[in-house]
Amino acid sequence: MEIGIIGTGSVGMLCAAYLAKEHIVTVYTRRKEQSDLINEKGIILIHGDQKTTVKDVKARSGKDFKEPLLIIAVKQYQLGDVLPLLKETKERKNLLFLQNGMSHIPMLESLEGHNVYIGSVEHGSLKTGDATVAHTGAGVIKVGSLFPDQPPLTLTDLHSERFPFEAARNWKESHSRKLLANAVINPLTALLKVKNGELTENPHYSRMAKSVFKEASGILGITDENAEWEKVMEICRRTAENRSSMLRDTEAGRKTEIDGIIGYLLDEAKKQNTRVPLLEFLYHAVKGGEKE
Amino acid sequence: MEIGIIGTGSVGMLCAAYLAKEHIVTVYTRRKEQSDLINEKGIILIHGDQKTTVKDVKARSGKDFKEPLLIIAVKQYQLGDVLPLLKETKERKNLLFLQNGMSHIPMLESLEGHNVYIGSVEHGSLKTGDATVAHTGAGVIKVGSLFPDQPPLTLTDLHSERFPFEAARNWKESHSRKLLANAVINPLTALLKVKNGELTENPHYSRMAKSVFKEASGILGITDENAEWEKVMEICRRTAENRSSMLRDTEAGRKTEIDGIIGYLLDEAKKQNTRVPLLEFLYHAVKGGEKE
Repeated sequence: MEIGIIGTGSVGMLCAAYLAKEHIVTVYTRRKEQSDLINEKGIILIHGDQKTTVKDVKARSGKDFKEPLLIIAVKQYQLGDVLPLLKETKERKNLLFLQNGMSHIPMLESLEGHNVYIGSVEHGSLKTGDATVAHTGAGVIKVGSLFPDQPPLTLTDLHSERFPFEAARNWKESHSRKLLANAVINPLTALLKVKNGELTENPHYSRMAKSVFKEASGILGITDENAEWEKVMEICRRTAENRSSMLRDTEAGRKTEIDGIIGYLLDEAKKQNTRVPLLEFLYHAVKGGEKE
Repeated sequence: MEIGIIGTGSVGMLCAAYLAKEHIVTVYTRRKEQSDLINEKGIILIHGDQKTTVKDVKARSGKDFKEPLLIIAVKQYQLGDVLPLLKETKERKNLLFLQNGMSHIPMLESLEGHNVYIGSVEHGSLKTGDATVAHTGAGVIKVGSLFPDQPPLTLTDLHSERFPFEAARNWKESHSRKLLANAVINPLTALLKVKNGELTENPHYSRMAKSVFKEASGILGITDENAEWEKVMEICRRTAENRSSMLRDTEAGRKTEIDGIIGYLLDEAKKQNTRVPLLEFLYHAVKGGEKE
């Protein structure tokens, strides 16, 4: 199958590296230097001690997406640049969106000319160079349909043992659970400047994580709170040595995904007329550290 | 007058340097190297561009406090070492306590054999070496009596224009207001790793400060909230370039004064049966960063 991947952050590059084994993959970059580099040297995929160079990837810095399946892997706050281009596309396409958070979902409803799929990425990945990505945690991508009347995405085409895809009967639920974990781990690690593991190992930080968890799970209407809390702590243990993406973004003075994650929860809290003082506090803590 | 000063942090050294001009001052240090250094070289007082060496200070590392007025300038969490020694002292003395926070006040009630005074230090000071202190902000020390039936401290003896003392009609109130400013400025600057000025200059950090202020002023029963908030912001502006003591303690991996400040407010909130989620969050954020 011909697959276009828009966005070459860690998730886009991870998808490209794995899917290129079975498919004709084109990645769309913003910068020409990056597409030149990928065309020349391929993508280097690091997994544990293994280093594979994936040569069969084309890269383009253009914006005429022609593949029948497009995987959109830009950050939530970059969708504003991409959505107009997708709307103009005349041919009906399968569009798989892989953003964190939920605040972009309403925007996607304007894409009714296409089949729109929402994916939750549960992989650990880290971009370590313009053409290098590390697969730091084995996971899965759970996929659901945005519009109820569209055909489901044929995941058997994409699925492989090392890079699994799974149908999400209820994408909103799996996205909510992903959002919940992100809401706890990302802003706290960014604020405290600690690795993920500290949130389970340091009893004071665990208390903070639990308080944030409670506000967020209340807003998301999570019913099995104990089981879900255990899952969040399990993620922290499994990724103990990882520095979260928000911590890395904060330290590098980059824009973070705080609006898509905590910003979304604040909007929901407002609709539900619920007070969430800690989420508000965390929002401003991270937002205040972003360089303008 | 003979004055003993127990504790040679920035406040103790500041008092020693100013009071030695008119009085016979002995400072009590914990480490012999420090008392040797002060005996040999005096205390260096930095004020703006001026650098004065105060030679007329004696230093001792012993623990037999013989002066009729003792100024106790150790941190709140070090009082446990000092109070038993003061209790044993047979002669009735004037004891002036200069700790931040309020959590130590109940402990002082066991000193009924002495006259006990509580002072609120509103100076900016910074210890930059074992015998060097910078006076970074002009202020005052407000003094009140702990026991209602004891004579007030004769402040005219201590007072000078450059180092003023003032009677606090209601020491609890001036201590509460000091505590309120400390509760907002200290933990937030320590957590966000910013200078005091950022709390007024960065609108996101101001929002955080305001939320913390509201919880703390509620617990302290501050009625003129707007005026008091303005005072806290004024302190941030006046000390914009300062790094708070808690930020410095946190960065150096030292114990902080969080228990005396936020810990006290949490105890009060419990007594008042009031929820203070942000104060609790801040407490754990700072406490979790203290090295054991």
